[in-house]
Amino acid sequence: MRISFGPVPGPDVVVRKAAEERQLQLTKPAGALGRLEQLANWVAACQGVCPPKQFERARVVVFAGDHGVAQHGVSAYPSEVTAQMVANFLHGGAAVNVLARLADATVRVEDIAVAGDTAAEISRHKVRRSSGSIDREDALTEAEVQAALTAGAAIADEEIDSGADLLIAGDMGIGNTTPATVLIAALTDTEPVVAVGRGTGVDDAGWMRKTAAIRDAMWRARPVIKDPVALLRTASGADFAAMAGFLARAAARRTPVVLDGVVVTAAALVADQLAPGARAWWISGHRSSEPSHTIALQRLDLQPLVDMSMRLGEGSGAVAALPLLRAAVATLAEMATFAEAGVSTADATEPAGA
Amino acid sequence: MRISFGPVPGPDVVVRKAAEERQLQLTKPAGALGRLEQLANWVAACQGVCPPKQFERARVVVFAGDHGVAQHGVSAYPSEVTAQMVANFLHGGAAVNVLARLADATVRVEDIAVAGDTAAEISRHKVRRSSGSIDREDALTEAEVQAALTAGAAIADEEIDSGADLLIAGDMGIGNTTPATVLIAALTDTEPVVAVGRGTGVDDAGWMRKTAAIRDAMWRARPVIKDPVALLRTASGADFAAMAGFLARAAARRTPVVLDGVVVTAAALVADQLAPGARAWWISGHRSSEPSHTIALQRLDLQPLVDMSMRLGEGSGAVAALPLLRAAVATLAEMATFAEAGVSTADATEPAGA
Repeated sequence: MRISFGPVPGPDVVVRKAAEERQLQLTKPAGALGRLEQLANWVAACQGVCPPKQFERARVVVFAGDHGVAQHGVSAYPSEVTAQMVANFLHGGAAVNVLARLADATVRVEDIAVAGDTAAEISRHKVRRSSGSIDREDALTEAEVQAALTAGAAIADEEIDSGADLLIAGDMGIGNTTPATVLIAALTDTEPVVAVGRGTGVDDAGWMRKTAAIRDAMWRARPVIKDPVALLRTASGADFAAMAGFLARAAARRTPVVLDGVVVTAAALVADQLAPGARAWWISGHRSSEPSHTIALQRLDLQPLVDMSMRLGEGSGAVAALPLLRAAVATLAEMATFAEAGVSTADATEPAGA
Repeated sequence: MRISFGPVPGPDVVVRKAAEERQLQLTKPAGALGRLEQLANWVAACQGVCPPKQFERARVVVFAGDHGVAQHGVSAYPSEVTAQMVANFLHGGAAVNVLARLADATVRVEDIAVAGDTAAEISRHKVRRSSGSIDREDALTEAEVQAALTAGAAIADEEIDSGADLLIAGDMGIGNTTPATVLIAALTDTEPVVAVGRGTGVDDAGWMRKTAAIRDAMWRARPVIKDPVALLRTASGADFAAMAGFLARAAARRTPVVLDGVVVTAAALVADQLAPGARAWWISGHRSSEPSHTIALQRLDLQPLVDMSMRLGEGSGAVAALPLLRAAVATLAEMATFAEAGVSTADATEPAGA
């Protein structure tokens, strides 16, 4: 059975307008909080209420999966690290765990396509072990794509039904910047050499192997770039399809999302094709040092909140940026108005002298 | 009696090296947290301990003062707003209050040179009412400069003696981007028209009045730009001199500081001349939309953490960025090492295929 997505209406424009008007009443010069104001207005529009409410249940979901292409030496790390890092997430020792604790978010990890076995409680949505080596074979069967999209949508539903009011997708998978770059370069018609980065830190020989694999996968993907489901089947992996389903469903459920780096943003590009308009529910947390990430952000017309040369994945960049989004909400919700504080407004008196 | 400042030794290079080595043991690819790693290593070096400790008492001090030059219509707001906003700070309704609550920092406000009267508990360090109109007269007398520098240093001492482990200086004062621009343009030999911004949002006619005032003040300041104390006397204000004393003393007391926008950074330029080397104890929280701020940051060789087009002052940009600094500390202090988590390190196996 095929899961279906469709066009998504955007956040509430009437509430957005009310938020813009409230900004002008707060004790600051008009526009002086810069992007914080725009962020706050967007949150109000997403929530459909002004002033907006502070996020009470921000949830990170890390989608873990291995990739057949890793066997060609496109990464500095062996595939075993994916399952090892999944265990690290469960023990709270990874960067995303530390950052989430600080930003008042919680982390869930889901094994979508890890090559090895992981704990039962995180394998309920597992689609398969690893994904096909996309330089020479399809990542997934048609049934697996559908299962992965369904899994991602189901995870979004579970989280939103449990009260999540902000979602962050993260990734863990050795080799996963290779399919991410394939998706982005294919969908934006970009030459591989412009888009390929170092991922976790591959050396020059590895970079050349990675570029060759990406070129081969892009050649395989070319006939299907207009069909997002076929593209996921041909040139991604089960973890990517699950992220795409997650992001599309979150938008349909009117739940804002902070995007992370290159892997999540590649899935977002596909999700915005599955569910046109979904991008209006997303902001970009950070700019990764992977070159294809910037290309994808341009296509989605998203401007990252922070630019710290991070390139870790896991959702870490989005979680690092979360306090800025909370700050935006807090200013719109909690600052005193000119009237409340008895502060004069601009040009309340004519300038003397002049 | 003249207060004296002098050269300041930098943070601990041995501890910094230990922090760099610890970064390589954490469960992430080398360098994958980007600037967060450099920030964390800097904090460790400032604290003289690795791993660093999370900040337990981050303090914002807002230095309030009026400026005679405001009477020439260089601002969109009347001078009365300074005292009104000071009251707003005390009631917790201003942006910096809201942002500080969220970032686990507390706010202190000090009336250094507000034109009107303010509450007794924040006037202990008051130097005078307003400051001279620097386009035509000195901002301060020699005794007032010394009193203001001493006040700033005393405030830093009070905070550090009370346990502050991170300091943020903020500003409040209608017209204060005018002296800030004078200090920055004079110390960096910049043409006024390149440096002058809109401040709180002055209109075209006001911008021209502001530029003319800045040009006149720079002409008056030219003979004394090599002498930081004389420069403060001639072309700043008591609030600026207090901020400079605060920043110089914080560095001498080995206490890290997050700089805010154009006003604080102008004072920092002077403080780094009073106490050469002080800049090593500072980071820049954000990039303001005031053009002279970027000029000052270049001179201090500081790269801001966030760039959100904020232009409010109060310390708001620095406090908005504080969670990123906390995130840096948390990752270095709390992440699991490869050994602890049983995760394979890079190149633990040779890539197959290739």
